Amino acid sequence: MALRRSEVATHIVGCDRAEVLRQALEMGAIDSCYEDAAKSVEESDFVFLCVPVETSIVLLAKIAPRLQPWALVSDVGSTKKAFASAAREIFGASAREMVLPGHPLAGREVSGFEHASADLFADCLWVLTPLEGEGAVASHDDLRGALEAIGARVAFASPEEHDRTVAYTSHLPQMLSSALALTLEKAFGVGNPALQVHAGGLRTMLRLTQSDPAMWEQIAASNRENIAEALENLESELRTVRESLGSADFRAKFEQAREFAKFLKS
Amino acid sequence: MALRRSEVATHIVGCDRAEVLRQALEMGAIDSCYEDAAKSVEESDFVFLCVPVETSIVLLAKIAPRLQPWALVSDVGSTKKAFASAAREIFGASAREMVLPGHPLAGREVSGFEHASADLFADCLWVLTPLEGEGAVASHDDLRGALEAIGARVAFASPEEHDRTVAYTSHLPQMLSSALALTLEKAFGVGNPALQVHAGGLRTMLRLTQSDPAMWEQIAASNRENIAEALENLESELRTVRESLGSADFRAKFEQAREFAKFLKS
Repeated sequence: MALRRSEVATHIVGCDRAEVLRQALEMGAIDSCYEDAAKSVEESDFVFLCVPVETSIVLLAKIAPRLQPWALVSDVGSTKKAFASAAREIFGASAREMVLPGHPLAGREVSGFEHASADLFADCLWVLTPLEGEGAVASHDDLRGALEAIGARVAFASPEEHDRTVAYTSHLPQMLSSALALTLEKAFGVGNPALQVHAGGLRTMLRLTQSDPAMWEQIAASNRENIAEALENLESELRTVRESLGSADFRAKFEQAREFAKFLKS
Repeated sequence: MALRRSEVATHIVGCDRAEVLRQALEMGAIDSCYEDAAKSVEESDFVFLCVPVETSIVLLAKIAPRLQPWALVSDVGSTKKAFASAAREIFGASAREMVLPGHPLAGREVSGFEHASADLFADCLWVLTPLEGEGAVASHDDLRGALEAIGARVAFASPEEHDRTVAYTSHLPQMLSSALALTLEKAFGVGNPALQVHAGGLRTMLRLTQSDPAMWEQIAASNRENIAEALENLESELRTVRESLGSADFRAKFEQAREFAKFLKS
């Protein structure tokens, strides 16, 4: 929908379940469609795989033999190292030319066609993680241009750098939100009326729990070591906060946290 | 401002710093004012102490000798056990009649007169924690009526129950938000450009870090044991999530957290 509105694509081919394709055709988001992934990419210059991480690797292998030699495949997975490795295995020496992994830092706790929005990528950061190698690739610049045309800000990082950063900035907050819910359930049980005593702060911190568990299972599996490191560091930070309750250190820690978060916003 | 709009109060006396009183008078939020707390309560039927926990205890001792015998004092502190104990010490046998501790579960990360809003308590839960004792107190019903007139939903709990619950539903989310900021700062340092790779989820989880550290210092001191228990339980939950990364348990945990948070919203 965003590409359609930007007019940067002349012909958009959709691939999904029949029901979704019907809706997408009806609203003019796509020009033609296939339920078969390999068939759908045969005439494409650019291919976007918009599925969870592990599924995108399966799809990449499936479409590889049917791509035009000048085509460029990108994805929107939340981790990049596993997808980049798969690209190297599947395409060998031409992997860098054929595949440019990507990750738009946009998303909501809801999914499905009914929640689609052409504005989702407006002013969102879209990280591209080129495979290592020499020389510029023309289609990479074209992809960047298309992403900017739909309103994204494009940044570059290596797949490894990307995965370590998002372990802290995206995966850790998600784990935290779920762990908070589990802690409350263990302490009070489901349906305990005492839990009506809560305010907006708790609802804020639990918002992320509504994300898709199937998607997070794949993210956790594909970025396990980085997430484990981030969780361990957070556990140790919580211990420090706990040990400082009621001491002068406590306030200093809160002030430090406040300053850091202010910097992040600006 | 909320009381004024509800017309439930006939005369509202303010007590604060001179600059704040000037603004409150100008906008018609109060009818008269004193900078001296003891003086300000002499003719009042109801007194609201709207300051952090420890300060409210100091003020309660200061105003006690000047209250009318039929007056009722309430507060808005985030913990109730310490304030209730102070009331018992100061008022002895008449503590239950003179003091009805309260906690509106409303609040924002900002404070100060410029952020005041007559709508803050609309549909907010306001917990009242009567001191133990026999028999109904007429002024308690009047206070409840006034709170409902400004839009609050009133609930009752013992001070001890209240403090244990908010340790989990309010104080724990706050500690978590600050600990997340400290974890990110330790892993990346302030000003690291890699941190631009983040999305709305992180900003959501860091929102609470902007709360007032001075207020939280007093909350932490007055509810230390309950908060320590909650933090320990969360640390153990995070360890479980960490150990389940990439296993079948992981998804089950996420699904359980999602269901629990859904129940809380409804």
